[in-house]
Amino acid sequence: MKGSVSRRGFLQTAGAGSVTMWIPTHASGYTGAEMREKAAAASTLGVSKWELDTPALCVDLDKMEANMATMRKKLAATGTGIVSRPHAKTHKCPAIAKLQLAAGSIGVCTAKVSEAEALFAGGIEKILMTTCNVSASKIRRAMKIRKANRTFIQAVDNPKNAQDLSDAAKEAGLVADVVIDVAVGTRSGVPADERALALAQLVDKLPNLKLRGMISYDGGAQHIKGFSKRAEETLKRYEPSLRTFEAMKKAGLSTEIFSGGGTGTYNIMPKVPGVTDVQVGSYIFMDAQYLEIGGEGNEEIYTDFAPSLTVMSTVLNNYFPKRLTTDAGQKALTLNKPDPIVIGEKGFSYTAGSDEFGTIQYETATKQYEVGDKLELIVPHCDPAVNEYDQIYATRKDRVEAVWPIAARGHSQ
Amino acid sequence: MKGSVSRRGFLQTAGAGSVTMWIPTHASGYTGAEMREKAAAASTLGVSKWELDTPALCVDLDKMEANMATMRKKLAATGTGIVSRPHAKTHKCPAIAKLQLAAGSIGVCTAKVSEAEALFAGGIEKILMTTCNVSASKIRRAMKIRKANRTFIQAVDNPKNAQDLSDAAKEAGLVADVVIDVAVGTRSGVPADERALALAQLVDKLPNLKLRGMISYDGGAQHIKGFSKRAEETLKRYEPSLRTFEAMKKAGLSTEIFSGGGTGTYNIMPKVPGVTDVQVGSYIFMDAQYLEIGGEGNEEIYTDFAPSLTVMSTVLNNYFPKRLTTDAGQKALTLNKPDPIVIGEKGFSYTAGSDEFGTIQYETATKQYEVGDKLELIVPHCDPAVNEYDQIYATRKDRVEAVWPIAARGHSQ
Repeated sequence: MKGSVSRRGFLQTAGAGSVTMWIPTHASGYTGAEMREKAAAASTLGVSKWELDTPALCVDLDKMEANMATMRKKLAATGTGIVSRPHAKTHKCPAIAKLQLAAGSIGVCTAKVSEAEALFAGGIEKILMTTCNVSASKIRRAMKIRKANRTFIQAVDNPKNAQDLSDAAKEAGLVADVVIDVAVGTRSGVPADERALALAQLVDKLPNLKLRGMISYDGGAQHIKGFSKRAEETLKRYEPSLRTFEAMKKAGLSTEIFSGGGTGTYNIMPKVPGVTDVQVGSYIFMDAQYLEIGGEGNEEIYTDFAPSLTVMSTVLNNYFPKRLTTDAGQKALTLNKPDPIVIGEKGFSYTAGSDEFGTIQYETATKQYEVGDKLELIVPHCDPAVNEYDQIYATRKDRVEAVWPIAARGHSQ
Repeated sequence: MKGSVSRRGFLQTAGAGSVTMWIPTHASGYTGAEMREKAAAASTLGVSKWELDTPALCVDLDKMEANMATMRKKLAATGTGIVSRPHAKTHKCPAIAKLQLAAGSIGVCTAKVSEAEALFAGGIEKILMTTCNVSASKIRRAMKIRKANRTFIQAVDNPKNAQDLSDAAKEAGLVADVVIDVAVGTRSGVPADERALALAQLVDKLPNLKLRGMISYDGGAQHIKGFSKRAEETLKRYEPSLRTFEAMKKAGLSTEIFSGGGTGTYNIMPKVPGVTDVQVGSYIFMDAQYLEIGGEGNEEIYTDFAPSLTVMSTVLNNYFPKRLTTDAGQKALTLNKPDPIVIGEKGFSYTAGSDEFGTIQYETATKQYEVGDKLELIVPHCDPAVNEYDQIYATRKDRVEAVWPIAARGHSQ
């Protein structure tokens, strides 16, 4: 409890970075449409994030760029040759994918074929789709992407699906690049035993598929609290995947790709021999969930990456003692835990349990909040929060530099 | 625990209504774009909901229409003259708002000004906005709607805001229709004491506002389990609102509108003398949350309205004993509790905790599930689930009759 309080205290002040607390008394409240217009006219630079119509999703470019640079630098420092292949399910935004590729990432991942379609339409080519396409429609669409984009790679985790992919690739007149998805846990992927090797051998043999290696992602490991515990459990849980990789190698199968790991394990996966890349997602944005897992140098707070993603919100009601109501509820922040963090206020407990309203309870506040005042929030969990918005405001020193469409928002298919 | 099991068992079989369980082995997987094309060509009728690319949000028209008819009939039977003014934050869909107006509703509510804009653009005029607009931008936009639409009514809950509204109305050259929002609990609205009466008197006096009455909504009362307990608490909690209404009446102020209540209290509010309409939202769709509150005739399950809203999902993985993985996770269903209900399977426990995947644990199943098989799910909580989708498929006897854009999706501003 004490740990949790001090953690949140840190995050709400210095830990969250220096925020320019210029908050206009009479904010203009520029709407999404007005901001898109301004961006088209290249006059957006003058607008402060505090002037946006709320709730508004913002990313601080200085912090996000620093996060990308950190990822590149820290991976390079391992001397293993490991690189990042960021998961675009986090941001669903071609503009951000382009920045990631420019910052040294080898490609991006997508979770759904509709996400891959949106990113490809947005100019992104190096896409690895990490979920299997199991319907005829999705397989056809994946082959259509592959036909137009030779760098598209897709995952497969069962023999029937491999046969279906090969048939569809033949139908499309191509040889499709495929990685096998090897399970860690019981969610997705082929179990990491003889079935995984057999699947790799099948893919290798099928006439219209080209085996490129394997992916193996441990979703459950990312949020284990405390770095040493996380490292220990991650490496243990990964042993079957590593054995699969070694068996594939021994069998002379392609292991060009051996992809896994996420934001919580990006500095653990380099210890697994052979891993080529990490599928990190949240590192660019961070969120309340990742902040509390602790890092290698700080067991309390994960400070490797800076919280760049925030939601701007407005106070709607201050009638009730020690309470405030805001305009950012579940539809703006999701129900994920831990709760959203109000930047600059150590004593605020924020709940997004209501669909349309945020409710704050507090004992102490830095000022008397009036109706119309703005608050800036760190979201509980970045991926699903981003999926609530059509656009994200890219800011630098609080000023909006760009308005980016979240092109794959709602693309859960 | 036993009650919960029997409740879910009922819902998963007969209680959820008769579902045509024709599930094609090789579903076509029609995408949103393909379905919009088909709808434009008026050829959509031939497509089964089981043929849709998943996750797909569907509403059963027979059930939804029956829910609207039930609401009309049950309110009429009270002999109080009370009617429904459904909350459009639930569906965010002009097509459904039109059906509600055709089914006897006096108008619709919206929670946000951007929602009101989208509905008005979609042809809906009778809108009551239940949240106060507190920024200059939102007030301007509300006045713009009022200028184009004489039936637009907005809520106010504090004196400064009332003055701002009057000033903006004057600026726009109009007299704006306003209701005061009276708090139940501590979330929004003016406290139901002398401050509420003073606010009503101020609105009545301000030159460019026209007082139309009051709204007072008790969000916390809707999900109290057990009808008699819910009725007792609702009426008790509503006493201060009723006193405010009576004081306004006595003071000669307009009480033409006295609006409150929701799907859980639509048959309780008629007992409050003077209430003119209920702001029911979920009654058209239902969800796992409302199903378990119990009704007047059934303390276990709320059977007044039929669960019409479902999400179609696909099985992605069946490798692991007593487990299945689907393509509908948090981004398709939200994290609300209780968990999604798999129609037709009593023994399934569904978790949408993963962003992209649903995970099922079960002891018994009605069949052996293969990868690619489809499942139909009742969502935990309809409002935020609908907000994850761009369109909703309107079906009758499992065939798609229409593809409706969820025009106000993501309009949380």
